[in-house]
Amino acid sequence: MEKENKNNNLTSISELGEFKLIEEITKTFEVVNDSTDLGVGDDAAVLDFKTNKVLISTDMLVEGVHFDLAYTPLKHLGYKAVISNLSDIFAMNGICSQITVSIALSNRFTLESVEELYLGIRAACKKFKIDLVGGDTTSSNKGMIISITAIGYSINKTITKRSGAKENDLLVVSGDLGSAYMGLQVLKRENEVFKVNPKNQPDLSAYTYLLQRQLKPEARKDVIDFFAKNDIVPTSMIDISDGLSSEILHICKNSNVGCNIYEEKIPLSEELIAACEEFKLHPTTIAMSGGEDYELLFTVNQKDYEKIKNSNDLTVIGHITNDSKEANLITKAEQIVPITSQGWKSF
Amino acid sequence: MEKENKNNNLTSISELGEFKLIEEITKTFEVVNDSTDLGVGDDAAVLDFKTNKVLISTDMLVEGVHFDLAYTPLKHLGYKAVISNLSDIFAMNGICSQITVSIALSNRFTLESVEELYLGIRAACKKFKIDLVGGDTTSSNKGMIISITAIGYSINKTITKRSGAKENDLLVVSGDLGSAYMGLQVLKRENEVFKVNPKNQPDLSAYTYLLQRQLKPEARKDVIDFFAKNDIVPTSMIDISDGLSSEILHICKNSNVGCNIYEEKIPLSEELIAACEEFKLHPTTIAMSGGEDYELLFTVNQKDYEKIKNSNDLTVIGHITNDSKEANLITKAEQIVPITSQGWKSF
Repeated sequence: MEKENKNNNLTSISELGEFKLIEEITKTFEVVNDSTDLGVGDDAAVLDFKTNKVLISTDMLVEGVHFDLAYTPLKHLGYKAVISNLSDIFAMNGICSQITVSIALSNRFTLESVEELYLGIRAACKKFKIDLVGGDTTSSNKGMIISITAIGYSINKTITKRSGAKENDLLVVSGDLGSAYMGLQVLKRENEVFKVNPKNQPDLSAYTYLLQRQLKPEARKDVIDFFAKNDIVPTSMIDISDGLSSEILHICKNSNVGCNIYEEKIPLSEELIAACEEFKLHPTTIAMSGGEDYELLFTVNQKDYEKIKNSNDLTVIGHITNDSKEANLITKAEQIVPITSQGWKSF
Repeated sequence: MEKENKNNNLTSISELGEFKLIEEITKTFEVVNDSTDLGVGDDAAVLDFKTNKVLISTDMLVEGVHFDLAYTPLKHLGYKAVISNLSDIFAMNGICSQITVSIALSNRFTLESVEELYLGIRAACKKFKIDLVGGDTTSSNKGMIISITAIGYSINKTITKRSGAKENDLLVVSGDLGSAYMGLQVLKRENEVFKVNPKNQPDLSAYTYLLQRQLKPEARKDVIDFFAKNDIVPTSMIDISDGLSSEILHICKNSNVGCNIYEEKIPLSEELIAACEEFKLHPTTIAMSGGEDYELLFTVNQKDYEKIKNSNDLTVIGHITNDSKEANLITKAEQIVPITSQGWKSF
């Protein structure tokens, strides 16, 4: 197999990166059905089955790549696997109603461990009123693989794609950013300590919020409900799974616009700031590049500012500009720094 | 990890088997949405989004478990992976319109190999007018994993579940059975020969049909079209992916009926019969237990016999009885043999 990679005519996937690979793969597919309104290239596919639009989104999680069972309880893993898919449906301004769950397992797993996983899946389903409507269960030669497809719906005129941001729109984010990533750093550090001294009892009380953000993230259905209640339809939206930098670049590219994000506006938790000090990391870097917060990043017309401003949980962090080549971070020192994707790289 | 399996309180998945595991997992989920007409337990889920019913089906394929790249060209693998999912939608008497495809790959794969895979996926999409509307692409620590979700639709009154078979209904199968399994046996044998002598050029011309059935199976959309054209709505239906024995037991269990299948009626290809002679296998055993034919097994009311009988490609192989404890094969020697599931076991 090594031979294949040494052949200069072949392109290795690790060189190519995930987004490029998806682009390569999908560019050769044409849409042929009237019922396909929007296919690959957004958080979910939009299918027109006449009345409500059906939303479909899917994700695959691989042990050792996306999760490490050394510090991820199976129940939390199940919960989070569902949450990350729901988040994609919410990022279309949709309601999620069903999921399918496929798992492949090596023979080191017992029924009880699978039940632990499904306890978490069930908890997420219960909380968000989701029906599990299918799936597949099979064996693997190594580790656990989870593939989830989420199905939802939305009324046509309220579906929010990545592509609708317009000049002067406000750039808004829910919750705070970076804490899930710092939670992972804490878990990794404790895991290293544990390997050296298994009897060590870690005191993780200072990191409760960070660990919760990493191990039991929530999908922001409440934000979608807030939009409906206040007659807001964002002009574009995406969920923050790969980090703010990566997501804002998706919005800018798909909407053919630029943006200014103000560093001082980026919402950070106190726990994140404290942990960054301890780990000697820059909070803004973590907030821009750390993934898995599952917050929503969206743009609204300025006329909606009055409706947004009273929410404690929504923060205006910048605005959209008309220069598609300029996605900038304006630092606290008023320097202009071009935003580059530091998002999570799967290959 | 071995410790887990030695603990007597725990149940190993390999002991449990796939169906039991799915049963264990799904029995704790309740349906909460009005839009969920039918969840887990059939070939596809039925979702009611008011006008047409939406059908969802999903499958996961793992290298070394479901396929061996030593004798499966990637293009064929891609084609077959789609076909097996379409087959599930057709088995609901539905039309498939979209798929999502997620793949995980170890770093031994090049872009070109992934493109080969997608060539096959695209060929299947083109042939069956399917849109690829989403997916995920990620890395794996070992081998290739493919997860496909198929989405389709059907008019409510024509959806065909596993559960509608009635006493005296005719049991009908499309195409012929067992050839895909024999194709696999031929490929495995040639692979062993190749390992010993890589310079050996095998003459596979006697096995063309068997290899085609294994490597490039078709999903029976033409049968669904035939139903529509002839105003036939089967009372129950399933696709034959795990072998006739396994599938007929699903219909009997879900419909709470029994059946008589007549050995002499089971459609076999000439190539299968010849290869069984060569391999010293019994053709009926192969037809009953060999999977991956992706033919349709269905029941119809006797009044539809006139419509069915002129089709060269549909064979009445038996009938439904009212005794749910009796699923029998009536042999050519007129012996009555209870049918037991010999289907493909993933664990």
